[in-house]
Amino acid sequence: ACTAGGAMVRFLSAVIPGDGIGKEVVPQAIRVLDLLEELSDDIEFSYRYFPWGSQYYIKHGRMMDENGLRKLEEFDAILLGAVGLPSLVPDHITLRELLIHIRQGFDQYINLRPIVLLDERDCPLKGKKVNDVDMIFVRENSEGEYSGIGGVFREGSSEEIVLQTAVFSRRKTQKVVNYAYQLAQKRKKQLTSVTKSNALNYSMVFWDKIFNECGESFPNIKTDQYHVDAMSMHMLRSPELFDVVVASNLFGDILTDLGSVIQGGIGYAAAANLNPERTYPSMFEPVHGSAPDIEGKGIANPVAMIWTVKLMLDFLGQGELAQLILKSIRQLATEGRKFLTPDCGGEATTQGTTDYLLQVIRK
Amino acid sequence: ACTAGGAMVRFLSAVIPGDGIGKEVVPQAIRVLDLLEELSDDIEFSYRYFPWGSQYYIKHGRMMDENGLRKLEEFDAILLGAVGLPSLVPDHITLRELLIHIRQGFDQYINLRPIVLLDERDCPLKGKKVNDVDMIFVRENSEGEYSGIGGVFREGSSEEIVLQTAVFSRRKTQKVVNYAYQLAQKRKKQLTSVTKSNALNYSMVFWDKIFNECGESFPNIKTDQYHVDAMSMHMLRSPELFDVVVASNLFGDILTDLGSVIQGGIGYAAAANLNPERTYPSMFEPVHGSAPDIEGKGIANPVAMIWTVKLMLDFLGQGELAQLILKSIRQLATEGRKFLTPDCGGEATTQGTTDYLLQVIRK
Ligand SMILES: CC(C)[C@H](C(=O)O)[C@@H](O)C(=O)O
Ligand SMILES: CC(C)[C@H](C(=O)O)[C@@H](O)C(=O)O
Repeated sequence: ACTAGGAMVRFLSAVIPGDGIGKEVVPQAIRVLDLLEELSDDIEFSYRYFPWGSQYYIKHGRMMDENGLRKLEEFDAILLGAVGLPSLVPDHITLRELLIHIRQGFDQYINLRPIVLLDERDCPLKGKKVNDVDMIFVRENSEGEYSGIGGVFREGSSEEIVLQTAVFSRRKTQKVVNYAYQLAQKRKKQLTSVTKSNALNYSMVFWDKIFNECGESFPNIKTDQYHVDAMSMHMLRSPELFDVVVASNLFGDILTDLGSVIQGGIGYAAAANLNPERTYPSMFEPVHGSAPDIEGKGIANPVAMIWTVKLMLDFLGQGELAQLILKSIRQLATEGRKFLTPDCGGEATTQGTTDYLLQVIRK
Repeated sequence: ACTAGGAMVRFLSAVIPGDGIGKEVVPQAIRVLDLLEELSDDIEFSYRYFPWGSQYYIKHGRMMDENGLRKLEEFDAILLGAVGLPSLVPDHITLRELLIHIRQGFDQYINLRPIVLLDERDCPLKGKKVNDVDMIFVRENSEGEYSGIGGVFREGSSEEIVLQTAVFSRRKTQKVVNYAYQLAQKRKKQLTSVTKSNALNYSMVFWDKIFNECGESFPNIKTDQYHVDAMSMHMLRSPELFDVVVASNLFGDILTDLGSVIQGGIGYAAAANLNPERTYPSMFEPVHGSAPDIEGKGIANPVAMIWTVKLMLDFLGQGELAQLILKSIRQLATEGRKFLTPDCGGEATTQGTTDYLLQVIRK
């Protein structure tokens, strides 16, 4: 971002719509950014598009340009829709060679995922109120179970053995855990750590140790520790117990999908892949996938992508604009429910939902 | 088991009450078995008790006798309550050196976990009916993520790296997957496999391969494959989609705890650790833990343990007696709700719930 002339702030984003409904929700997010630019005097967003994804793979034999990371380096942020088209390319190629490649390559070691219920009608659990669901996950995002290390011994034979190794470094684990403590400091001073140290006797015992070590610098933060199986139960039975939650890459993945259900569905689930030091650009992509089954029907829910843009604005220091977005989504979920897409019980198209949000923001 | 005299069948079980409420629910399960023995002319249950667990560890420095597995070898079955007392002994010792040690040592490679909703009042999800939740998990139980392989590099230094390796063998994966296909054959001819092959590029890609290979021998079984994150969403939103589900050790662990919520809580969740070849005894232990927070209050729910005994009777070929148990639990959950323990909304004690079940069985 650079400030020029008066106090004009310019943000240059790389945009990767990706596959499936990624290509449908990204333009809606851009419409929202366009309006914010129009409404504000001193901010300018510009974009460069990258056609990377499964179709690109079919043509070029790779998911992104060979020097793709280098091309992305100069941007203030990366907006990504969704990746994956299992009928064309196996998921472990699509995802590992684009999404996970960027997360790890740009050391986006924090995946931040808010789980907020905006209207109790959205919650599939009996008797839960809006205030019962308001948490945020800090998911480790650059190593752990996703390190991609492994091998096959005597492939294809009856003796075949396959290994998959999770890698946890002290450096990264400390950074993630400290980030979570600091976030807890700014919120309710309450932090939950999720492991599975009763079974994963190296990685998770280590995580628990780091969690407790780091805690010594935050004596005023109340902490809890759960095994991932128990946590998945407690999140459903008592989401009100949780505020900031920190978890490994895999456990964060599973639990945030669970969280998306509690907040009303994956259509509300926003996410930010952050490199907090800003050595590399951060990436903003919703939790949902490419949903090829509804591609082209015009009913993809744009809310998660637009909420994700809200997280981008927060990270870029544009908290006021970010709040405008969240306020419009809140109004959609409460007063404007028929403008929701069908997955959330509304009647609107992708476009129609965004129209509603734009109209609210404009007021 | 041996048949002597007329047609008397004798079963000798090893009983490990373990820690916490394990010691409270096991005697209730024995009361049920005692009654079944009384009601039937040709069956006799006898037991030997093993005081293994966390208290034992404090005294002897180990969770079970040195030659514990050898001592258990002669039994027809092992009944286990619960293990774990984290205030005394770290969980990774308690669990790995007793529970996981027996599962792996006796090659109990199938963990069978039914998830059945008996009364819709038990389901925390809006709008779900009894028929919507009736599935059974086949969880790999002897290797995978629980292999216990790993290490620490430069421990304590800022360069510290910790590795945890999951081990998947073709032999075991095939057995587990085939077991699941066969179970699907006996039920609704529908099987769901859960992996995370978009991120775990060796282990889960391998699991998918084996799943598809084995499927060739079961052309009449309808199959589905989900990533574990998506599966956790679908289980909550549409449990009616699932009948038999097969998953790795870790994913099975997480998803069956989730399943227990859908069926009304961990107080209903039964499990069987099976060695299908019967080379070694199988072990029957409910999904719940030792719950030290409610130990001694007389309110531990005995239903999961008693349902677990039902699974034991099925495995021992006593399907009729098993049905008597399930029928009594069903009646408890529908007509006898005040005889449930408080965790399920009732007013009964551990003893009182069992009294009700015994009375129903006797009729
Ligand atoms: C697509 C997949 C690799 C990814 C992940 O597991 O991280 C997704 O599920 C997510 O949560 O962002
Ligand atoms: C106690 C723990 C090691 C165990 C497991 O993870 O298998 C438990 O959660 C279970 O589900 O039986």
